[in-house]
Amino acid sequence: MKVAGRRLMKSIYVLTTGGTIEKAYSERTGSVANLDSKIDRYLGLLRLPDCDVHIVSLMNKDSLEMTESDRDLILGTVKGLLVENRPIVITHGTDTMVETGLYLNRYLEDLNVPIVLTGAMTPLGFEGSDGLQNLTESFFAVRVLDPGIYIVMHNQVFPICRVRKDHTLGRFVPTDKDLV
Amino acid sequence: MKVAGRRLMKSIYVLTTGGTIEKAYSERTGSVANLDSKIDRYLGLLRLPDCDVHIVSLMNKDSLEMTESDRDLILGTVKGLLVENRPIVITHGTDTMVETGLYLNRYLEDLNVPIVLTGAMTPLGFEGSDGLQNLTESFFAVRVLDPGIYIVMHNQVFPICRVRKDHTLGRFVPTDKDLV
Amino acid sequence: MKVAGRRLMKSIYVLTTGGTIEKAYSERTGSVANLDSKIDRYLGLLRLPDCDVHIVSLMNKDSLEMTESDRDLILGTVKGLLVENRPIVITHGTDTMVETGLYLNRYLEDLNVPIVLTGAMTPLGFEGSDGLQNLTESFFAVRVLDPGIYIVMHNQVFPICRVRKDHTLGRFVPTDKDLV
Amino acid sequence: MKVAGRRLMKSIYVLTTGGTIEKAYSERTGSVANLDSKIDRYLGLLRLPDCDVHIVSLMNKDSLEMTESDRDLILGTVKGLLVENRPIVITHGTDTMVETGLYLNRYLEDLNVPIVLTGAMTPLGFEGSDGLQNLTESFFAVRVLDPGIYIVMHNQVFPICRVRKDHTLGRFVPTDKDLV
Repeated sequence: MKVAGRRLMKSIYVLTTGGTIEKAYSERTGSVANLDSKIDRYLGLLRLPDCDVHIVSLMNKDSLEMTESDRDLILGTVKGLLVENRPIVITHGTDTMVETGLYLNRYLEDLNVPIVLTGAMTPLGFEGSDGLQNLTESFFAVRVLDPGIYIVMHNQVFPICRVRKDHTLGRFVPTDKDLV
Repeated sequence: MKVAGRRLMKSIYVLTTGGTIEKAYSERTGSVANLDSKIDRYLGLLRLPDCDVHIVSLMNKDSLEMTESDRDLILGTVKGLLVENRPIVITHGTDTMVETGLYLNRYLEDLNVPIVLTGAMTPLGFEGSDGLQNLTESFFAVRVLDPGIYIVMHNQVFPICRVRKDHTLGRFVPTDKDLV
Repeated sequence: MKVAGRRLMKSIYVLTTGGTIEKAYSERTGSVANLDSKIDRYLGLLRLPDCDVHIVSLMNKDSLEMTESDRDLILGTVKGLLVENRPIVITHGTDTMVETGLYLNRYLEDLNVPIVLTGAMTPLGFEGSDGLQNLTESFFAVRVLDPGIYIVMHNQVFPICRVRKDHTLGRFVPTDKDLV
Repeated sequence: MKVAGRRLMKSIYVLTTGGTIEKAYSERTGSVANLDSKIDRYLGLLRLPDCDVHIVSLMNKDSLEMTESDRDLILGTVKGLLVENRPIVITHGTDTMVETGLYLNRYLEDLNVPIVLTGAMTPLGFEGSDGLQNLTESFFAVRVLDPGIYIVMHNQVFPICRVRKDHTLGRFVPTDKDLV
């Protein structure tokens, strides 16, 4: 585990893919939808003094509408970024977050950095939102976790092979045995 | 490093001692001061589903006014809580946070849990406050850090023997060698 | 026009009927809907030192779903409250706010107090919401306007017979001649 | 009393002079002070669709430190703006708001527009602030009030000759007879 003291600026990549965390209320339709990326606006509320953040806005989709080809695009982008050996935070809808995480896990080997998937149950900027908490935790997590793929939300860390979404509780819970 | 999956509720102690993070604006005096503890109100904004939080409001002081006897009281309380083997978050003014941390470090041996000191540059509830970010990070940190005493703020973790406050930058920075 | 200086507590009735202003995000469905009344929580953010507020939560409907019988219920309640000669703020969906206002106008004669209809384009508590602005303005309006029925939103006052919703602009605009 | 329906854009002048409403927390000093004007940032949160707002940042002073020459500057500026026959909102510290209002009242005759003084007990952007409420009310007030000089705060309107600050209550209250 790496605890700080480092002098050099640390770089973190953020890959945004949509999901509830980025949904916005549309006055025209009277409903919430994935319109524009708003992660950067909320990251601006955090103090990250020794950390360079690079945001890659890949897509802006409800995760229930993500296709195999979307996951391929995410995988390809992650592979490209991994060349630089920098930790990656992926913002994603919660409904298929585990699926995307396991997909990455299948095709990525010998990671040197942590990859953290996160999202929200209520969009950023809506009262009671968990979005900024989850972003804060994820940015902290990629600084201290060992290489691997995780879901980080609600003060919890789950290795990607030991987690499922509990739809009744509205949050992630650990599984008894490894998923593959 | 402990990554989750745990079924059992985890308990975390929060010791509040005052500092900027808890300061409030007084309409009567037109200035900010340590009046009542407000940590609990802000912790209520975080989702901590598998975590029991116990708040101990020890004192509410500007850390520049802390005395040796205040630090003794903090040390005594921490010792008492450590019996239960639960991680501890201490909220504290930033000006003498390192001093209190080193004091604890001198008298506490063989820790089994992490102790995290945190605070804020701008009070909770004031625009641009870093308070909730620092609380979020500290609660996350005590779940994943190894036993030891740390300062956690602004996406950074500092072992207590390798940190100082930089008054020009308005934040903590690492030191070159160990403090004692 | 009545400008203050009054010593006595002033009473204002608030009739809530639903509409966008009271919509909430449901984590279970991932959409916004009229669930519980939340006007009282937001009124608690305003300072109304010489003003007794009585909230009557009549219904919680999208105004597109309001029926003739709903409008009858609103009319009946308003008639009952008018006996006490206190101004009334009605929170309402914007889509049929004019319709309800004209309905009241048809059946209420010789008003001694102002009745103000208001609402919001974005729900209370969502980033960019106009809800609290409109509530603030409406509470101020019923203190200073002459008896009559008005729509108050976005720093504007419209007599109910001279207003329509412009769906392209997403706000109310004046009409050239009287509606009946 | 003018109720809307007007087609033309309405212009409103805002004269900022400092006071609690514009105070900010300084991390360097750990105290609140009048640093930069922040009225414009908060006005940006309001929807004022048919209203041109012109902000004149005149000074940024605690109103207890205002001198005769500061009041002369305010008077001169107001006189200049009155040539355009547009209503004026003046943001000001509450401690000497009445004094400045009476000063204007002494030297301004035959007003054609309302002039509203407003401020706050707690700075804009601090939890529990009344600043945005008071701005919202003042912008609404200058649209509907008759010509004259008023203080508008906390859902109340006071003609300038009938108001005093009650330091115990922390708000303005009406006087029994005219001040001059």
